[in-house]
Amino acid sequence: MSSDRSPPISRRALLSLIGRSAGGAAMYQAMTSLGLAAGSSFTGPPRLEGAKPGTSVLILGAGIAGLVAAYELRQAGYRVRILEYNDRPGGRSWTIRGGDTYTELGGQTQRCGFAPGQYFNPGPWRIPFHHRAVLSYAHRFGVALEPFVQVNYNAFVHSSKAFDGRPQRYRHVQSDFQGHVAELLGKATSQGALDGTLTLEDRQRLLEGLRGWGALDAQYAYRSGAPSSEHRGYDVDPGGGLARSAVPSTPVGLSELLKGEVWRAIATGQEYDYQSALFQPVGGMDMIAKAVAQQVGSLIRYRAKVTRIAQDDRGVRVTWADAMHDGALHTERADWCVCTIPLSILGQMELQVGAPMRAAIDAVPYDASIKIALQFKRRFWEQDDAIYGGISYTDLPIDRIAYPAHGYGTAGKAVLLGAYNFGPNAYEFTAMSPAQRIEAALDFGSRIHPQYRSEFDQGFSVGWHRVPYTMGCFGLWSDAARVEHYRNLCAIDGRLVLAGEHASNLPAWQEGAVLSALDAIERLHRKAMA
Amino acid sequence: MSSDRSPPISRRALLSLIGRSAGGAAMYQAMTSLGLAAGSSFTGPPRLEGAKPGTSVLILGAGIAGLVAAYELRQAGYRVRILEYNDRPGGRSWTIRGGDTYTELGGQTQRCGFAPGQYFNPGPWRIPFHHRAVLSYAHRFGVALEPFVQVNYNAFVHSSKAFDGRPQRYRHVQSDFQGHVAELLGKATSQGALDGTLTLEDRQRLLEGLRGWGALDAQYAYRSGAPSSEHRGYDVDPGGGLARSAVPSTPVGLSELLKGEVWRAIATGQEYDYQSALFQPVGGMDMIAKAVAQQVGSLIRYRAKVTRIAQDDRGVRVTWADAMHDGALHTERADWCVCTIPLSILGQMELQVGAPMRAAIDAVPYDASIKIALQFKRRFWEQDDAIYGGISYTDLPIDRIAYPAHGYGTAGKAVLLGAYNFGPNAYEFTAMSPAQRIEAALDFGSRIHPQYRSEFDQGFSVGWHRVPYTMGCFGLWSDAARVEHYRNLCAIDGRLVLAGEHASNLPAWQEGAVLSALDAIERLHRKAMA
Repeated sequence: MSSDRSPPISRRALLSLIGRSAGGAAMYQAMTSLGLAAGSSFTGPPRLEGAKPGTSVLILGAGIAGLVAAYELRQAGYRVRILEYNDRPGGRSWTIRGGDTYTELGGQTQRCGFAPGQYFNPGPWRIPFHHRAVLSYAHRFGVALEPFVQVNYNAFVHSSKAFDGRPQRYRHVQSDFQGHVAELLGKATSQGALDGTLTLEDRQRLLEGLRGWGALDAQYAYRSGAPSSEHRGYDVDPGGGLARSAVPSTPVGLSELLKGEVWRAIATGQEYDYQSALFQPVGGMDMIAKAVAQQVGSLIRYRAKVTRIAQDDRGVRVTWADAMHDGALHTERADWCVCTIPLSILGQMELQVGAPMRAAIDAVPYDASIKIALQFKRRFWEQDDAIYGGISYTDLPIDRIAYPAHGYGTAGKAVLLGAYNFGPNAYEFTAMSPAQRIEAALDFGSRIHPQYRSEFDQGFSVGWHRVPYTMGCFGLWSDAARVEHYRNLCAIDGRLVLAGEHASNLPAWQEGAVLSALDAIERLHRKAMA
Repeated sequence: MSSDRSPPISRRALLSLIGRSAGGAAMYQAMTSLGLAAGSSFTGPPRLEGAKPGTSVLILGAGIAGLVAAYELRQAGYRVRILEYNDRPGGRSWTIRGGDTYTELGGQTQRCGFAPGQYFNPGPWRIPFHHRAVLSYAHRFGVALEPFVQVNYNAFVHSSKAFDGRPQRYRHVQSDFQGHVAELLGKATSQGALDGTLTLEDRQRLLEGLRGWGALDAQYAYRSGAPSSEHRGYDVDPGGGLARSAVPSTPVGLSELLKGEVWRAIATGQEYDYQSALFQPVGGMDMIAKAVAQQVGSLIRYRAKVTRIAQDDRGVRVTWADAMHDGALHTERADWCVCTIPLSILGQMELQVGAPMRAAIDAVPYDASIKIALQFKRRFWEQDDAIYGGISYTDLPIDRIAYPAHGYGTAGKAVLLGAYNFGPNAYEFTAMSPAQRIEAALDFGSRIHPQYRSEFDQGFSVGWHRVPYTMGCFGLWSDAARVEHYRNLCAIDGRLVLAGEHASNLPAWQEGAVLSALDAIERLHRKAMA
């Protein structure tokens, strides 16, 4: 059908090219020096040579930052212990499966009855290709990864402000927005609007490019026909034998697309953080944290609630309550401390640090976010709508619907993400009871998938401001706060250093937490060696 | 970092929206009547009720078309037999693994020494979401599917005509082409070029959209800074703790992009046939054919080379040579015949059909194509270049390099697709010996991946014009030939009907073969019942 290929080359040119292609090593030098292989600031595990024997480090929190810090410090020869509030590793890198129970702040308990193999990641759920630190730990500990489908051209884009509220296919709005832009720029080019900006040769090449890229026809128009249908799809696809002929589809007008602000949805998958390839661990995001935890399992004390952090020039003293034994208080001492407790909690705790770090801790509010998982009796989004993985976007308060990127085509119950939002919408949903949240997610989602009500089985929600000992989704740095406080938050205060996504320039991402931990322990190591 | 979210909504608006969202069933009616759920002409398995007991159908070829025809006809009560030239099912839907041997026309034999778990699909290798017939058979017989990564923003786009021959990251050329287009159209809009075309309100909305979609800055310029780096990526990514600050990247100029014709590469993934989500069967494309073959295994006679097809008004007589027994000739009789033998072979065979079908068979040449698989000692494309799956494009004769979409992050040897081209390039490569092809693929590929020579382990190639009893990749219909001959090719001729990708409007795709087979047997059934 379409031409996924390059122009031909003659045999002579082919052999000539083969002859000229020597010098691969020299070329690689050039590429590397040009930064083609660079990007991530992760350059491998930290170098922590020569730790003084017996030096102890207490790590607060067994989220991904604390786990990685513990693993690397112990590798380097430190005596390491971890205190963790929950009864599991991972922190916000958390996966809920059938049989799990969760009690949120306010006392409401949810019991998860999802089918075997189904799961819900209330926190991180995708790993971009450039998050090389997280990927490296996944690779190192043998965590199987599979693609996370972000962009699905057959998913929906829904705007209550356009198309009479009818959901549109992503491929339609993607193709049509681009096609109209190409047509308009082509017209402007032909009419001389770019004569002072581009050379004649470039204008000709641009017109040719706009036609191909924009799916314009021979007259540089974006309209119903083979070129546009090769991008947006047909009303009736080409078939086999003597079946009815293909029927081209008809583009949506630009005015309606602009009213619906559909460019917001189609730009998302083009952002660096959401570009393919993205990944998810097979079986749930917590597989990575669990794999690191398996390496340092004996070092972790679970259900230990830290209540006070004190320090002097000889070490740290951390008071914690043992939830396994009626909250009995204990004190743990160590030479050094890596604290990964969220600032939302740390700010309320008795904490012996200097004024600059204290001010930094108080300067960072936490963003609200909620995720609502819905289990349905069958994969109607695949069976009825041919949507396999990916995300439908809406301007309704649920913000999006994300389809499972595993188990494609299987029968039986399956879980999708029925809401995932931030800010005011998230506060509204978090304020509801778990049952009310499900109802709201079903009501809104029914506008995109009318099958919702008849196919619904059960749901589960996590509003991050109600998660005990977390109380927020991620540190919401303002630009001003970052300028004034970021270095003070990250600087070692006596014998204490903070780590976690809040102590990074990649907030809300596991990569930020891991890079923060690696940077923190390298600096701590240098100070301990001094 | 970036805002994968919608604008907020007040609690009152939220509750109001919930209240108004009744009527899901009515809405689904509306959606369905608007064709939102349509597209594919596949509407489920064929209805073949009431077959006359004992009626026999002989199927020629156990490729995906023949297998599906056999399965459905037998389900309907027909007596079915299949004759297949190869010693395996699947035809061009073929997977080569370690231990396999292949002798091409000309007599050269290749032995595959790929590592366990590695494989090579010389034929089809991806299944678009809208190929619902193929997907339905995969689902029905429990074939596990995983995403095929088509677009990889971190793969390369390489043009020997631009960038001094240096490969560019896909994310750079994608972001920069779109960004420059947005900036140019923004300028034209601001300067009044669209005043007669769009309303003032639409012009304002368009400017806002171009800024977001094109990653323009506050002055509607596409240049180095946070907005463009949020699309194309940074020179140094944001990191953790006190690591060095992020460094924005610098866009490439439009002139160089136009010279390199990079829009060809970035438009490919936007074509209907290559839009996400695409799939591949876990373990190799032949898993689908094998799964159908398992249902009809007892009906298949392998290594049976059909040499003559005769028919009269009572039935068909097919002569075949038994390669298991020195080519002994046999004759198979049946009431009806479904022939899926490629036209490239059928055209050379003694075949008793009318002049219209004969002319149609002779009117369709077969396109050349070759694929070259290369096994390397390690996944340097992942480890060194952070390319996980997807495709790098080049204007060199290898046309593209495709990275394996399975086993991400694993150690050990791995196979990539080092060349996949059509037309003249494919003829050139097919004319070489298998060893020469590998050398050429390595030479060309080294310009994109300098690690090629030092990491190479072994290769395997299939040039379709040298595949015995296939002799070509797919039926290359011209528009004129299709107008004149297509219906004559597909029409039942006496007791014979043709099926396969060549008898479809989806050439070169398995979906075309399957839809062709389903359409053919439905018509055959109606004729047999008449």
